[in-house]
Amino acid sequence: MNLDSLYSELTLKTTAKLALIVLDGLGDVATNAQSRLTPLEAARTPNLDALVVEGCAQGRMIPVAPGITPGSGPGHLALFGYDPIEYQVGRGVIEALGLGVELKAGDVAARANFCSLDAKGIVTDRRAGRIETSICEKLCAMLAKKVKKIGDTEVIIQPGKGHRFVVVFRGKGLEGPLTDADPHREGLAIPAAKPVSANSAKEKKAAELIAEFYRQALPVIAKEKPANGFLMRGIAHQPEIPTFQERYLLKPACLAVYPMYKGLAQLVGMTKIEGPQTIAEQFERYLAEYDHYDFFFIHFKYTDMYGEDGNFEAKKQAIEEFDAALPIFLRKRPDVLAITGDHSTPCVMKGHSWHPQPVLLQSAYSGNDKLERFSETGANLGSLGVFEAKYLIRYMQANAKMFDKYGA
Amino acid sequence: MNLDSLYSELTLKTTAKLALIVLDGLGDVATNAQSRLTPLEAARTPNLDALVVEGCAQGRMIPVAPGITPGSGPGHLALFGYDPIEYQVGRGVIEALGLGVELKAGDVAARANFCSLDAKGIVTDRRAGRIETSICEKLCAMLAKKVKKIGDTEVIIQPGKGHRFVVVFRGKGLEGPLTDADPHREGLAIPAAKPVSANSAKEKKAAELIAEFYRQALPVIAKEKPANGFLMRGIAHQPEIPTFQERYLLKPACLAVYPMYKGLAQLVGMTKIEGPQTIAEQFERYLAEYDHYDFFFIHFKYTDMYGEDGNFEAKKQAIEEFDAALPIFLRKRPDVLAITGDHSTPCVMKGHSWHPQPVLLQSAYSGNDKLERFSETGANLGSLGVFEAKYLIRYMQANAKMFDKYGA
Repeated sequence: MNLDSLYSELTLKTTAKLALIVLDGLGDVATNAQSRLTPLEAARTPNLDALVVEGCAQGRMIPVAPGITPGSGPGHLALFGYDPIEYQVGRGVIEALGLGVELKAGDVAARANFCSLDAKGIVTDRRAGRIETSICEKLCAMLAKKVKKIGDTEVIIQPGKGHRFVVVFRGKGLEGPLTDADPHREGLAIPAAKPVSANSAKEKKAAELIAEFYRQALPVIAKEKPANGFLMRGIAHQPEIPTFQERYLLKPACLAVYPMYKGLAQLVGMTKIEGPQTIAEQFERYLAEYDHYDFFFIHFKYTDMYGEDGNFEAKKQAIEEFDAALPIFLRKRPDVLAITGDHSTPCVMKGHSWHPQPVLLQSAYSGNDKLERFSETGANLGSLGVFEAKYLIRYMQANAKMFDKYGA
Repeated sequence: MNLDSLYSELTLKTTAKLALIVLDGLGDVATNAQSRLTPLEAARTPNLDALVVEGCAQGRMIPVAPGITPGSGPGHLALFGYDPIEYQVGRGVIEALGLGVELKAGDVAARANFCSLDAKGIVTDRRAGRIETSICEKLCAMLAKKVKKIGDTEVIIQPGKGHRFVVVFRGKGLEGPLTDADPHREGLAIPAAKPVSANSAKEKKAAELIAEFYRQALPVIAKEKPANGFLMRGIAHQPEIPTFQERYLLKPACLAVYPMYKGLAQLVGMTKIEGPQTIAEQFERYLAEYDHYDFFFIHFKYTDMYGEDGNFEAKKQAIEEFDAALPIFLRKRPDVLAITGDHSTPCVMKGHSWHPQPVLLQSAYSGNDKLERFSETGANLGSLGVFEAKYLIRYMQANAKMFDKYGA
């Protein structure tokens, strides 16, 4: 029997409140240059410390599989309890979500960027000299005005930063993935996007659609300089994902600031609560919405951002700012609280990594690991051990007494 | 290759003695109200402590899967090395085993209970006013006398406590599961038990048999008051399980006091050793039987019982009583000794839970984790880490040098 089916079979509806607080890229590694401390270990966190001493379970979570560094998509899908290998979300979909496009199941999305073509259609600059965002927006508006529909399929064009944009095709019977309409180097023509599976009628239809999109769209910008062409990559469809509510019998809300995380939450059917811009405001809004949802996903971005910069001090301070706001959240305790990251973003790596992120779990039944602080090194000693992130939500459900006993 | 097949292929016959001592529901969680201690941590256990200091490996075991709380059936099947999701044992089978019925592979067993029916056959009380055990025994005797066989199939009726009993059908070509012959509320007639799989001829035969059983049995008690009917639930067959002996090349014996655990041991082909009533007597008997078996499963019930009561002090004392008896056992050391629980039964939860239970493993090759005591918090630091309980027997076999090297 499939393990997810077993969990579903055992799931009970309760009145418990659950909260998942994600400090993006929280996990880090200690180096001698950092006085053998991680930012979380170096930070002054009196409020987290108090939570730990009150009693909680700690552990470390493998985001996807040993050694695999996840992007934000797989990192969050795992936290939401979806196997990030089973539920793959294409790069185009993630980009579209990141730009705030509200995708529907079946939409095919592509990352795109403007490029320079010579008279023969050969790519001479894959990024069109890195044009400014304002020019990108103007070009996207030109395309959007000319190409609104292809047959029955709606075409949505959304500008991004610099030369980047996304194109979404919303119609019936479409599916990704397709190969890239991108030669991946200069000196070649733009190849056609082709179906990846030989026998998929839906991928074939999507490929024909994209060929037709090129036929209609290229002439629109043919006279522009330097951006007189465009490339498309990561062409994928939004997969059918069982909603969070049907999967866990929990009514979920998302309190995130950045579009990408709102998009990922929306992908699994969470309600986006708009407005708050700071973690303090997010926590205030959580208090206000406490009665209206069963599950709160609260996302804090800055740990990841400063980790990507390799800025130890700033990452440490971001954790301290988070900790300073935590008492607002704690005015209304959920029955089950998890605080963790979606992956590690070690300062020494200036990027995402595979290192298992620390997790803290507190409920009336979490037990007390008798640790003094929440930290990577402490979490190594915790009762949760090292486990796959996709199981966190199962531990949260268990702590909420949402599972019936298995077998007699 | 299937992992079980790989283990089987590598398994060597040796003369090693292995012992698995199960303190039922041993695992617990520390709470502040319990001075941040679990019963195992609070208990005075000089003999266990001495074992630990001598040298052993510790760890924690996930009984089934993260967050899943097992009943005794899956908990023990995992300890016996059988994947508890692959080998599911129906509720009727567990109940029958618990009442001491010796089941055979292919037997179909149902939990049953007497109920009250009105003149039209509508259930007016699902528990017949919770009749006393003596009345249940009388009614079961009446049924057993009238309905001994249906066609080729033997019918075995065993009374339980209060209104409860079990019915076992022993014949050829039968299989469960069937839907319940129980409306699950008053005011409705008893529904027919139906096959769960549409195309199973064996389930169909079992369903017809149960319909015929109702036709023959209901008239026998029709004039009784208040119990003039009965309901049947959890109708399942004893699955085909490869025996312990063929799977591990070990001749196993069971030293348990309660019928449920004897039944579970019997399910995998262990020999039940009857007689001992206390843990000291069980250990004495182990000494006497030492030469006759390769593997001893010794079951101690009271840790679970007091955990279910939420009685911290009594659970602690049960552990101390166990510890006091341990020197008897240690007069004849097995080559490999494992001491653990089948799951946790935290006092704070008054019931089974998903929390990984601590395990202690000692052999000449177990190594020494340099811990001072056997405890949940200590086990978090042990060399075995957190692992699935179904692998414990593999570690025991490995420590008994029962596995050939894999590959060159």
